[in-house]
Amino acid sequence: MKQTGLKGYVDWNGEMWLADSEEKDGFSSIWKVKQVLHKEQSEFQEVSVIETVGFGRALVLDGIIQTTERDAYIYNEMITHVPLATHPQPKTVCIIGGGDCGAAREVVKYPTVERVDMVEIDPKVVEVSRKYLPAVAGEGEPDPRIRFVYDDGAAFIRAHKDEYDVIIVDSSDPVGPAAVLFEEPFYRDVYAALKPDGLMVCQSESPVFYPHILKRVRDTLQSMYPVVRTYLATVPTYPGGIWSFTLASKQADPLQTQPDRLRDQDTKYVNRDIFRSCFVLPNDVRKIVQTG
Amino acid sequence: MKQTGLKGYVDWNGEMWLADSEEKDGFSSIWKVKQVLHKEQSEFQEVSVIETVGFGRALVLDGIIQTTERDAYIYNEMITHVPLATHPQPKTVCIIGGGDCGAAREVVKYPTVERVDMVEIDPKVVEVSRKYLPAVAGEGEPDPRIRFVYDDGAAFIRAHKDEYDVIIVDSSDPVGPAAVLFEEPFYRDVYAALKPDGLMVCQSESPVFYPHILKRVRDTLQSMYPVVRTYLATVPTYPGGIWSFTLASKQADPLQTQPDRLRDQDTKYVNRDIFRSCFVLPNDVRKIVQTG
Repeated sequence: MKQTGLKGYVDWNGEMWLADSEEKDGFSSIWKVKQVLHKEQSEFQEVSVIETVGFGRALVLDGIIQTTERDAYIYNEMITHVPLATHPQPKTVCIIGGGDCGAAREVVKYPTVERVDMVEIDPKVVEVSRKYLPAVAGEGEPDPRIRFVYDDGAAFIRAHKDEYDVIIVDSSDPVGPAAVLFEEPFYRDVYAALKPDGLMVCQSESPVFYPHILKRVRDTLQSMYPVVRTYLATVPTYPGGIWSFTLASKQADPLQTQPDRLRDQDTKYVNRDIFRSCFVLPNDVRKIVQTG
Repeated sequence: MKQTGLKGYVDWNGEMWLADSEEKDGFSSIWKVKQVLHKEQSEFQEVSVIETVGFGRALVLDGIIQTTERDAYIYNEMITHVPLATHPQPKTVCIIGGGDCGAAREVVKYPTVERVDMVEIDPKVVEVSRKYLPAVAGEGEPDPRIRFVYDDGAAFIRAHKDEYDVIIVDSSDPVGPAAVLFEEPFYRDVYAALKPDGLMVCQSESPVFYPHILKRVRDTLQSMYPVVRTYLATVPTYPGGIWSFTLASKQADPLQTQPDRLRDQDTKYVNRDIFRSCFVLPNDVRKIVQTG
């Protein structure tokens, strides 16, 4: 079969590689695949797990790499510790997406947390992550505070009001099943599902390749919340490296918070100094998020 | 001709791509090439300039992408403004390497600077950068304070004593002509070429793919200078995104400096807040630079 695009699993002189392409930019990050450990079509997407040469095992959805054993901790720590160290006393947490279970594992490091509702649309993602990626999902039985819900994240959040201290939107890219998680109606429902002092965080894509998505997420959240802060981390697995997260809060402002509950010894990337510095944006990203 | 490695210029179903590979990690960043604007073998290396699909024009040495029009400013600003805003009054500056002229262009934004010796081993790199990459090298005639020296950087610096306020080692990777610029004898000569209150900065490679180089650079500099600080920036063009720089100073400490001379309006990436936050290292990089 002739391969026309450099996308998903490709053959290079008899070797298998996985390509994650930014097609309009003619740019691709590609990984040499040692072995495909699992591959199946779920109800929602193609779910596969591969063994890469240099990044350990990786979860791949519809041909797009989501997380690798080597650097999953960066994304998972940044999307969880920053909001959890900002909220004065997080007890109820909801994670939308996050089927690799890495975010949930970070959330339960906070002793104040009583319940984590992890709402993943695709049970297959949780199943294969727990089976093949214990370095990301954790070994053995998950913490009993984590409640696994297999449901559409948008529908689930619409049905809950005034319930959560922190909502974490750990979605894949805004194509396929995750597209609705970048739309204004979903954000309105998230607002309603938060308690009066609640806060939410979402991954807001690459400022290099998708500045318009970051900008739209910011603008939408700024029309609802008094405090909106974008922060950055570098995830080697994601094309271009730099990745943005946006936190929106009804009360607490991370810039005014002492992150005393963030324990540097619990983490491999984030620490109390990173909690401050991640909100410092270079001029090019400042320009994207300037509103009005 | 059968292509066995994914390195340099490769053919993908009749399209030309440029691959920058971390071979032992089975990881590659690849760019679709619209057009090769220039390609020749200089005395030192293969020098080419390409038009990419999404990153504008790019300078390529021995098949490795050095700089692109789209993101050259990140690297060039970070390797210059941080040391120049740290030194109390930089007058004489030496740049080793930096043939794309982008670093020199940033240095002359500081009015205290009287002379910049730009020591590039390969005149072809300067020639093609000025011809094909004005967005990086600058339009028209260079600032008269810049003195172009075509010489071996190591030999040049060995012949100068007690002369510079700031030395910037803007080298390519430690293979080929740049290898000596990562060795201890060179660093000793840099120390001797600096004035008693001088400071130097070098690019110290990717903490993801070359942690041992970063560590060795740190250790070597710490055996000579009282102040050694590693800082980070994310350059989408470089595999993995994250890049390290290491500053070594005889007196001034950037952590104790108010970067008042850094004018945010002159730059596209760095600003006074980034001047502080770039020195904050995540736990994984802290671990690399901790010395025993």
